[in-house]
Amino acid sequence: ERKEISREILCRLNSLTKPQGSLGRLEDLVLWYGLACGQSLFPDPGGVVCVFASDHGIAMSGVSAFPQVVTVEMVKNFANGGAAVNVLARQAGLELMVLDMGVNADLSFLPSVVNAKVAYGTQNFLTQRAISPSEMVQAMKTGFDLSVKLKVQGKGFLVLGEMGIGNTTSASALISALLELPPVLVTGRGTGLDDRGYRKKLEVIEQALSLHGPTISFPLEWGMAVGGFEIAAMAGAILGASTVGLPVILDGVITSASALLAWRICPRVKHFLLAGHVGHEIGHKAVLEHMGLTPVLDLDLRLGEGTGGVLASQLLKSAICLFHQMATFEEASVSGKI
Amino acid sequence: ERKEISREILCRLNSLTKPQGSLGRLEDLVLWYGLACGQSLFPDPGGVVCVFASDHGIAMSGVSAFPQVVTVEMVKNFANGGAAVNVLARQAGLELMVLDMGVNADLSFLPSVVNAKVAYGTQNFLTQRAISPSEMVQAMKTGFDLSVKLKVQGKGFLVLGEMGIGNTTSASALISALLELPPVLVTGRGTGLDDRGYRKKLEVIEQALSLHGPTISFPLEWGMAVGGFEIAAMAGAILGASTVGLPVILDGVITSASALLAWRICPRVKHFLLAGHVGHEIGHKAVLEHMGLTPVLDLDLRLGEGTGGVLASQLLKSAICLFHQMATFEEASVSGKI
Repeated sequence: ERKEISREILCRLNSLTKPQGSLGRLEDLVLWYGLACGQSLFPDPGGVVCVFASDHGIAMSGVSAFPQVVTVEMVKNFANGGAAVNVLARQAGLELMVLDMGVNADLSFLPSVVNAKVAYGTQNFLTQRAISPSEMVQAMKTGFDLSVKLKVQGKGFLVLGEMGIGNTTSASALISALLELPPVLVTGRGTGLDDRGYRKKLEVIEQALSLHGPTISFPLEWGMAVGGFEIAAMAGAILGASTVGLPVILDGVITSASALLAWRICPRVKHFLLAGHVGHEIGHKAVLEHMGLTPVLDLDLRLGEGTGGVLASQLLKSAICLFHQMATFEEASVSGKI
Repeated sequence: ERKEISREILCRLNSLTKPQGSLGRLEDLVLWYGLACGQSLFPDPGGVVCVFASDHGIAMSGVSAFPQVVTVEMVKNFANGGAAVNVLARQAGLELMVLDMGVNADLSFLPSVVNAKVAYGTQNFLTQRAISPSEMVQAMKTGFDLSVKLKVQGKGFLVLGEMGIGNTTSASALISALLELPPVLVTGRGTGLDDRGYRKKLEVIEQALSLHGPTISFPLEWGMAVGGFEIAAMAGAILGASTVGLPVILDGVITSASALLAWRICPRVKHFLLAGHVGHEIGHKAVLEHMGLTPVLDLDLRLGEGTGGVLASQLLKSAICLFHQMATFEEASVSGKI
């Protein structure tokens, strides 16, 4: 069936008034989209960007340039429409959904934020597992159910975004563990650590891997040991999306760590994933290369929130508009090759 | 004055609720835009994409995969709204203008096409100069005046696009001459030449350079010897844009050849140029590297028409929306770095 869908999409692409293949990566995007949806005929897609917010116990160990309270402050900024992802979502015509997966403050007074809080932040993974098994199931189920719901509602694609002070440390630890690469090869400076902060971050990750490594026998356990509620929820969302045929656009290193976790659980998810961009964090690049995902954009972004994914979604939409709206050689009476 | 504008723009960028510099290339785009406009305060820009269409005498020498009649057929396709650039311009909210600079057919019956015809195609540059001095002046003046008019009308930026069977041969010959690089290093397969066609194209360019080289003493003469009316017009448009402060977004190898010609005439134009993408044609990459222009997108496009420039303009618009609409740390009460 995948072959038939590919054939139909390529046939239409090759009938449009352009030299064959001349839209390059945009033609790949159309093909990816159709295969992920499971159909060669699809409407211009309306997409949604979901920002999963959560706090991290590890933030107490001095691994971020910003204080933990910034997580809740930024969620309020999302609710008020003032953050980068708000601006980009408005401009790209995407719906924005913010989920409190585990922010370390009561946010139930914010009506526009979905309350899916698992706990008030994870545990500090320098002393114990960040997430308990029941918390892991709860967080992943939230993401899984969300994807199913979005597909039922007729959404065309899901852009993953996140917010959480300390979460590049969590993501880098998870990537280091799952790729079996030393932390220094997959850890960056996050939101802007200085040299001392960066050395501290590396030490923390090394300690965490030594502490938890001997007790772990499969990938999901690494998600519990060093992950976060937002990372677990996004991994669940990817698994859900692959079940119902909802295309997913990744953003930065944290969403990519989620994708890596989901992929280790179920390799089939890869067909449903688009790497929106490759950014500043070296762990991001390592995951994309390992999974064989080619990023659409390379703009040196290091903001997260889903910003790179939303920017890439504009190109996906452009590609689909071209697919739907361009005239064919026949319609326009344009001559073919000599 | 440039320093003052830079300072004001960076000051605003650093006040927005994001880690400093975390919007990467998008921050550079805002800075470039403000400097090109000559102001730190500017509205959300409305842009225009201008497609310069023209025919080439060299198309008679078997250098293209498509017959020359495709130029006029595609201009009709532009007029009817069915080409790739039409779809992308609509989606990006850009105005589209199509100029007949020298198509080898009467197009005066198409009211939506600007009649700026210099002649019914250039001469075949294997036997004589493609363009006479008076034709060169006329074509360049058309472009120059257009940029001035667009600026007066309040347009925010100009995306350059082109259509003309044979024009990658003209562009590659011009690039080879101006960069003093052998044709094989700056010549690609255009719209899809096979091996035999590609060898023919290389031979044609080599012959043309040998024929004209001994008679030429400055860059503009190369534009007349092997250029095209659309290339001359775009070089004029770039010179005009740099005079009035209109930011210009380049597309593929042909627009880049125009930029190289304009730059050799007046190096100051560089500040007004954004490389929208780097594409499939090796001459394109060579020009951008030589001029020190970093492309925004890398999508393996090889269509022309301004398509890559329009796609890049979406990112420029995103960057400017972020600059205007994001909340500051103060407005959103978000904490700064520890």
